[in-house]
Amino acid sequence: MALIVQKYGGTSVADLERIHNVARRVIKTKDMENDVVVVLSAMAGETDRLIQLAAGVSSGRQVKREYDMLVSSGEQVSISLLAMVLNNMGYKAKSFLGHQIKIITDGMHESARIQKIDTTLIFDELRNGNIVIVAGFQGVDSNNNITTLGRGGSDTSAVAIAAAIKADFCEIYTDVDGVYTTDPHVYAKARKLKKISYEEMLELASAGAKVLQQRSVELAKKYNVPLYVKSSFNDDEGTLVTREDRDMEKEIVSAVTFDKNQAKVTIIHVPDEPGIAARLFMPLSDQNIIVDMIIQNASIEGHTDMTFTVPKGDMGEVQQILGEVIKDIGAERIDYDENISKISIVGVGMKSHSGVASKMFATLANEGINIMMISTSEIKISCVINEKYTELAVRVLHDAFGLEKEE
Amino acid sequence: MALIVQKYGGTSVADLERIHNVARRVIKTKDMENDVVVVLSAMAGETDRLIQLAAGVSSGRQVKREYDMLVSSGEQVSISLLAMVLNNMGYKAKSFLGHQIKIITDGMHESARIQKIDTTLIFDELRNGNIVIVAGFQGVDSNNNITTLGRGGSDTSAVAIAAAIKADFCEIYTDVDGVYTTDPHVYAKARKLKKISYEEMLELASAGAKVLQQRSVELAKKYNVPLYVKSSFNDDEGTLVTREDRDMEKEIVSAVTFDKNQAKVTIIHVPDEPGIAARLFMPLSDQNIIVDMIIQNASIEGHTDMTFTVPKGDMGEVQQILGEVIKDIGAERIDYDENISKISIVGVGMKSHSGVASKMFATLANEGINIMMISTSEIKISCVINEKYTELAVRVLHDAFGLEKEE
Repeated sequence: MALIVQKYGGTSVADLERIHNVARRVIKTKDMENDVVVVLSAMAGETDRLIQLAAGVSSGRQVKREYDMLVSSGEQVSISLLAMVLNNMGYKAKSFLGHQIKIITDGMHESARIQKIDTTLIFDELRNGNIVIVAGFQGVDSNNNITTLGRGGSDTSAVAIAAAIKADFCEIYTDVDGVYTTDPHVYAKARKLKKISYEEMLELASAGAKVLQQRSVELAKKYNVPLYVKSSFNDDEGTLVTREDRDMEKEIVSAVTFDKNQAKVTIIHVPDEPGIAARLFMPLSDQNIIVDMIIQNASIEGHTDMTFTVPKGDMGEVQQILGEVIKDIGAERIDYDENISKISIVGVGMKSHSGVASKMFATLANEGINIMMISTSEIKISCVINEKYTELAVRVLHDAFGLEKEE
Repeated sequence: MALIVQKYGGTSVADLERIHNVARRVIKTKDMENDVVVVLSAMAGETDRLIQLAAGVSSGRQVKREYDMLVSSGEQVSISLLAMVLNNMGYKAKSFLGHQIKIITDGMHESARIQKIDTTLIFDELRNGNIVIVAGFQGVDSNNNITTLGRGGSDTSAVAIAAAIKADFCEIYTDVDGVYTTDPHVYAKARKLKKISYEEMLELASAGAKVLQQRSVELAKKYNVPLYVKSSFNDDEGTLVTREDRDMEKEIVSAVTFDKNQAKVTIIHVPDEPGIAARLFMPLSDQNIIVDMIIQNASIEGHTDMTFTVPKGDMGEVQQILGEVIKDIGAERIDYDENISKISIVGVGMKSHSGVASKMFATLANEGINIMMISTSEIKISCVINEKYTELAVRVLHDAFGLEKEE
C-alpha cells in the first residue's frame, strides 16, 4: 500500500468521456490498496475561455487579484465533475479547493509561490476512505485572497502536495507519454527516456521543453519526490524523474531541445562602468521579464555591447522599458532580432566528459549553421542560431550524440 | 450618503457589454457618495452550462456537495469580471466569494439557508473606498464546504447581506422592470405596481410569479429591508416592496397570478384514521417535495379522498413514493392530472373587504371555467382549473377587480 499523488492535465479532463477515463485510472490505483490524492487542471479550453473573457475587459493591464479570481474558477469545475463520476462509480471521493485544503501562497498574483500546505484535511479524508481531489493551480494568500501559480501551475500543486504528505511518488499524467530525447514532431528518431535526473529535467524545462512546469521539478528535487511522467491515454511506462544515479552518467547527452520563443536584444556601445548591468536589468526584472542568456563583449575604449535574450511575448514591454533606460545610461542604440532559436544539449554525463561543447560547435558548423550566442552550465550547452535552422540543428545533434540508441 | 446593496441577475451580466452596463450603473450610485455592495448571479447561460455538465455525469442522483462545488463556480466569473471593469474605469473594486466574506449556511447542499454573515470584511473594504462585489447564490457551511442557496438564491444573498450590514435599501436589478398586476405577456393591460407589501410579494412568489426568490422576500420582511425591483436595461422607477401601509389597503386585489407547474394528485378511498395524513406526506417531504394545496373530502363510511398538488417536475418521484405508501395505508388507487393550472388573486385589501372570494368564483363561472380545488389565505385566494383556461381566467379576473386602473 502506497500513498500516491496523481496529477491530470487539461487535455486529460477535456470532456466527460475523458473524465470517466481518469476516474477508471484513479480507481485502478485505489483498488490496489493505495491512498490516492488527485490534482486536476481545468478542462482544456476552459482556462483559455476565461482568459479571453478577461482580455475582452480591457486592452490594458488586468487587476491581478481579480484575474486570479477569474481563472481559478476553471479547476472548480473539473474537480467536482471527477468527484461526481467517482461517486457514481461507487467510490467515495471529495473535491477541495485551495482555500479548503489551506494551500497557502505568497501574495504574488498570477505567479504565486506555495509557502505551506496544511495536511490535516487531506489525511482526515484519506482516513475516511475518500479519494481526495484537489484543485491544481490555485491557493490563497495569508489574507485569503485567491492566488494562482502561473501557467502549468498544477504540476507544482501536485508536487507540493506530494512533498507535504510525504507521498511515495507523484504521477504526472499529460498528453505526452514521457520525456523524449528530443521533440518527436521534429525528429522521428526521438526516443523516450526511462529515467532522467531532476537536474537534466530542469535544464530541459528552461531550454524550452514543456513537459513539466519548471518549478514543479525544482520542488520535486528539493523534497526528493519521485515523479513519473505518463500519458493519460495509454498504459506506457512513462519516464521517471529522479535523483541522479550512476547509470545516467554513462550517457554524455540525454536530450536535445530547442526554444523558438526567445528574442535577442543587443545594446550597442554601453559605457563600461560599475552598476551598468544592474541599471539595465533591474527595470526588466521589476516587470517580471525573464532575461535568459546574457553576454557582455570585451570592453573597447570604455564601451561594450551587451546581448541577451527575452521571451518574444515580452518584446513590446522590453522595447518600452529599454527605450528609457538607454537614454539614462548613455548607450548608443538597441538592436532586436526575433528570428532566433535556442538549441541546447542536456546531460549529466557532461560533467565527466570533455569535448562535448566542441563536438556540438563542430556539428553545427558542418551544416553551415552560424552560432550567435553560447551559454553553458554544468550539464547544458545552449547556442542561439538563426531560427530557420532549428529543426536541422536538432536532427544533426541528435545523430551526433547517438541519442536514438537505447540507454 | 446611503449604504446600498445592488443585486444583478444573470441576464444583466450575460456578456461583457452588459457587465459594462452594470458597471456604469454601479458607478452612478457610487458617484452620489453612496457606499455600494454589489451581489451578482452567474452570467446567463453559465449555470445552465454547468448543470448540463453535471447531467452528463449520470442520470442518477448527483452528489450534492460536488454539485454545489460545480455550480458555484459561475458567480466567480461574473464578480471578477465586474471588478476588472470597474477598476479599468478608475474605481476601486474588489470581488469576494462566500467563504471569503464568511457567508455561513447550514449544510443542506443545493438549498442551504444562510445562518450568519460576517460583516467585518465588507465594512473594512467599504472604508477603504472599495466597491464590494459579492458572489451571490453561495456560502460555506461550518466545515467550509461550499453550499448553494437554490435557484434564484442570489436574491436571498443580496437581502441577507443588506440585512446584515443594515443597508438603507436593496435594489434587485433583473430583466423585468418591476412587479405587475399580472404577467404582461398574458394580458397587455397588466400594470406595473409602484409599491407592494412583503406579504403580497410572498403570496405572489408562492403563486408562481418568478420576480423574486421567495426566501429573499421572507428575509426582507423579517429584517424590514426595503426592496426595489428594477430593470437593469432602463431607468424606470421599478416597484418598491415594503411594509404594508394604509394606501395598500384601499386596493382589494393587487395582482392576478398563475402557476402551470403544478400537477394534481388524488388518492382515492383513504381510510380515515389518525396519522394517515402524516404517513402520506412525510415520505414526500423527506424527499424535499413541496406539497402545495391539500384538500380532504368529508369522510364517508370511514374512508375519504385526498387531493393535493405537487410540482410537475417531481411527478416521477411522487408516483414512485406514493405507489409504496398507498399499499401501506390501504388506499384504493391514485389519480394524477397534469393538465391543471393554479390561478390566484392576491391583495392585502382582502383582509378588510368581504365578498372577494365569491366575486372570483362568479367571474370564473361566468366563463364556464370549472374550479377543481380552492385554497385561501388571509390575502390570497387560489383556484385550480383546467390548464387550457389559464389565460382566459387571468384576463377576466384582471378586469373584474379593475387592476388596469392606476392605484
